[in-house]
Amino acid sequence: MIDQSTICAISTAPGVGGIAVLRLSGEEALSIADKIFISPKEGKKLVDQKANTLHFGTIQEKGETIDEVVVSIFRAPHSFTGEDVVEISCHGSQYIQQSILQLLMKQGARLANPGEYTQRAFLNGKMDLSQAEAVADLIASNSLASHKMAMSQMKGVFSKELMSLRNELLQIVSLIELELDFSEEEVEFADRTQLIQLANNISEMIHSLADSFSLGNAIKNGVPVAIVGETNVGKSTLLNALLNEEKAIVSDIEGTTRDVIEDVINIEGVAFRFIDTAGIRTTKDKIESLGIERTFQKLQQAQVVLYMMDLSRPTNENIARLDEVREKISEEQQVIIVGNKADKAGSNAIRALLADLPLESNEEVCFISAKEQKNISQLRSLLIEVSEIGNLHTQDVIVSNARHYEALVKAGDAIDRVLQGIQSGISNDFVSQDIRECMHYLGEITGAINTDEVLGNIFKNFCIGK
Amino acid sequence: MIDQSTICAISTAPGVGGIAVLRLSGEEALSIADKIFISPKEGKKLVDQKANTLHFGTIQEKGETIDEVVVSIFRAPHSFTGEDVVEISCHGSQYIQQSILQLLMKQGARLANPGEYTQRAFLNGKMDLSQAEAVADLIASNSLASHKMAMSQMKGVFSKELMSLRNELLQIVSLIELELDFSEEEVEFADRTQLIQLANNISEMIHSLADSFSLGNAIKNGVPVAIVGETNVGKSTLLNALLNEEKAIVSDIEGTTRDVIEDVINIEGVAFRFIDTAGIRTTKDKIESLGIERTFQKLQQAQVVLYMMDLSRPTNENIARLDEVREKISEEQQVIIVGNKADKAGSNAIRALLADLPLESNEEVCFISAKEQKNISQLRSLLIEVSEIGNLHTQDVIVSNARHYEALVKAGDAIDRVLQGIQSGISNDFVSQDIRECMHYLGEITGAINTDEVLGNIFKNFCIGK
Repeated sequence: MIDQSTICAISTAPGVGGIAVLRLSGEEALSIADKIFISPKEGKKLVDQKANTLHFGTIQEKGETIDEVVVSIFRAPHSFTGEDVVEISCHGSQYIQQSILQLLMKQGARLANPGEYTQRAFLNGKMDLSQAEAVADLIASNSLASHKMAMSQMKGVFSKELMSLRNELLQIVSLIELELDFSEEEVEFADRTQLIQLANNISEMIHSLADSFSLGNAIKNGVPVAIVGETNVGKSTLLNALLNEEKAIVSDIEGTTRDVIEDVINIEGVAFRFIDTAGIRTTKDKIESLGIERTFQKLQQAQVVLYMMDLSRPTNENIARLDEVREKISEEQQVIIVGNKADKAGSNAIRALLADLPLESNEEVCFISAKEQKNISQLRSLLIEVSEIGNLHTQDVIVSNARHYEALVKAGDAIDRVLQGIQSGISNDFVSQDIRECMHYLGEITGAINTDEVLGNIFKNFCIGK
Repeated sequence: MIDQSTICAISTAPGVGGIAVLRLSGEEALSIADKIFISPKEGKKLVDQKANTLHFGTIQEKGETIDEVVVSIFRAPHSFTGEDVVEISCHGSQYIQQSILQLLMKQGARLANPGEYTQRAFLNGKMDLSQAEAVADLIASNSLASHKMAMSQMKGVFSKELMSLRNELLQIVSLIELELDFSEEEVEFADRTQLIQLANNISEMIHSLADSFSLGNAIKNGVPVAIVGETNVGKSTLLNALLNEEKAIVSDIEGTTRDVIEDVINIEGVAFRFIDTAGIRTTKDKIESLGIERTFQKLQQAQVVLYMMDLSRPTNENIARLDEVREKISEEQQVIIVGNKADKAGSNAIRALLADLPLESNEEVCFISAKEQKNISQLRSLLIEVSEIGNLHTQDVIVSNARHYEALVKAGDAIDRVLQGIQSGISNDFVSQDIRECMHYLGEITGAINTDEVLGNIFKNFCIGK
């Protein structure tokens, strides 16, 4: 059920700007706007104006001018929400924005809930649920990769994929349920071998979509990269070289970086979430021990581990510590062994040794000088390479939403039960039920199946005004 | 000379919002927009569209969709700048805003300088200079009073006043210069008595406008109110009661508030700039002495002084300190003597004494309990009353701009020289020159007289995008 009230909100970013835009949506959008809008042309009313037109005038309260504005008129169903929409473009002072908002509410509009415009767009059939969710992702995206992913989802690439899966499932279930109707006659409308192959394909598709979630998550929130190493190998200096600004404390005193600092940095359109950690060393200081413990915890959450070593330190110690850390890294993680201070005297011995080090398939080596900003670009390229995000296309379907992921996992379980069921020859009743369940979960993603609770949870995380 | 390039900028507040608006202005606004805008209707171009219309489409770069947008078209001269203007309303992510901005620049638009849209509006004759300056004030205004003042200036009320003064001056100077032409014949086209009266009127008008600057400044930046009193009388508690939030440190240790804290608070549409000061007391602590010295300095800058006393302290001490502070307050300042802790035992004696205290015309007394939030509303009303801003009208002409004030002072000097000149019967040459000078300074305000340097100084303080 769509709430019939006309809603209003400030839709531009909070704060002071040259201009700001307030948005009204609902049946009374035009008539409410007419109560506060005065055109320089006497008697001109917004309700009489054509769709997709702009109108200059003033917003007035009790004869006092609040502002000179430009009003945009959109008419149902050709608007973002599918309803009549009025946008008021005013000067961007806080005072004016708030005054106009309050005037609109006095005239009968209600303050919009977070995401309510997008929710109405969904309820009015302008987009499906996963597209609506992509609107929020699009607004929040801060890198080329996350932007492409959200744009692809908003354009409905993911929805189309789900739709075609549901259609295939519908075909199977129709045949199976037809057999149920004729169950006394023991006919077989669906070839079991073909059925199994179809279900297998669908299962693969669903699992592959679900598997893309870890990539999608990395794209959305940044690829987690832990910078790990002994104390004073230059971790903070490297972070700063990458960030090109002084956010972490850089000092020559051992163990400066006790807290875990996270910085998101865009490299060639991919966001990396850098986790600077306390240096690893043998210590009796309790607080430092805690820091080192945390370092190892954080290391497990990272997709990429930058293991840094100081090339000017004694070779044996260095290699011993490297082996210690390598033990804590899993095969799924990518490792870049970074030899720092490559410009310093005495760095050649270990450099030669590292160059000959037998590497695992998930390991890379590079030599830099963080302080002198040398070879940083090679390290950046390596990061892009190991992240596997660089050559993403807008047409690629990647799941980045936890709700979608959960639904896909459940759909995957259901289709796997279907497969087992057909193979073991259980009753069509059960097979049909599992297929319907699989379809249900896929439908939840696009919103073909939805409840008020699900919608409430989705839109409450939007910003107000969208 | 107007720069002919087409300019672009993000015009909404910085940061992430539901939507953001980019603005293009200049001859090529439409053709540049066409290079990145793709309509769903094949072959549709923005350059072919009518003025004041809205168009849905996508912004694309090399076949990749950056965003779905709505474009507004305004055509010269019916736009804010008087030029062709295109506004692109996009989703409000930082990434999208920056991407579209960069695309526009790649296609030949130049990033607008601060205030350049308003500057073009002035140069294209859409508004005079004082109106253009009011646009910045309007955007910065954060109270009803400052908003009304800026709106009045933007609507040209001040400009009309100046225009009529200049016209009167022009009449006088014409007559006087006519006499110069016929100087050998010793005719007198202008009646000297009438001339003196006219010049007197003009002088009064100009001086009264210049005098309004202190009020205008108080409205624009907030009425400066110093809260002064002995240590621990509850100054910070009062500030918090007025602010209704804990911004200053409140504590029972004497001398907590060493730094001068300023907070702007809106009371019934008037902004007050509260200056919390270090407590006055006899001390040997060097840092505290500095604080007290600063208190007396700040006291001189205040338009209103809230002198607070603790009613529960010994009566004699209290009155002695009050007299000490009264000596430091000038007649132009307004004083509100605030008896705090009126709820405490022992407050009656001094309360009775204060109620009988002979007051100067610039003094008021009120009793409150800051901690219990009692009588705060009475104090708020007193503040509005003594500020003399409460009943301001949009039609009132108040000068709030330092540049205008300086020009008015110079114009006032010139017209006073005119008066003296006529009265002492000096040569018409000199009188005429002084009148022309007075007109010149009035013309500087509206921009009838302007230089690139003046314009540069004015618009550099605007925000980008306006």
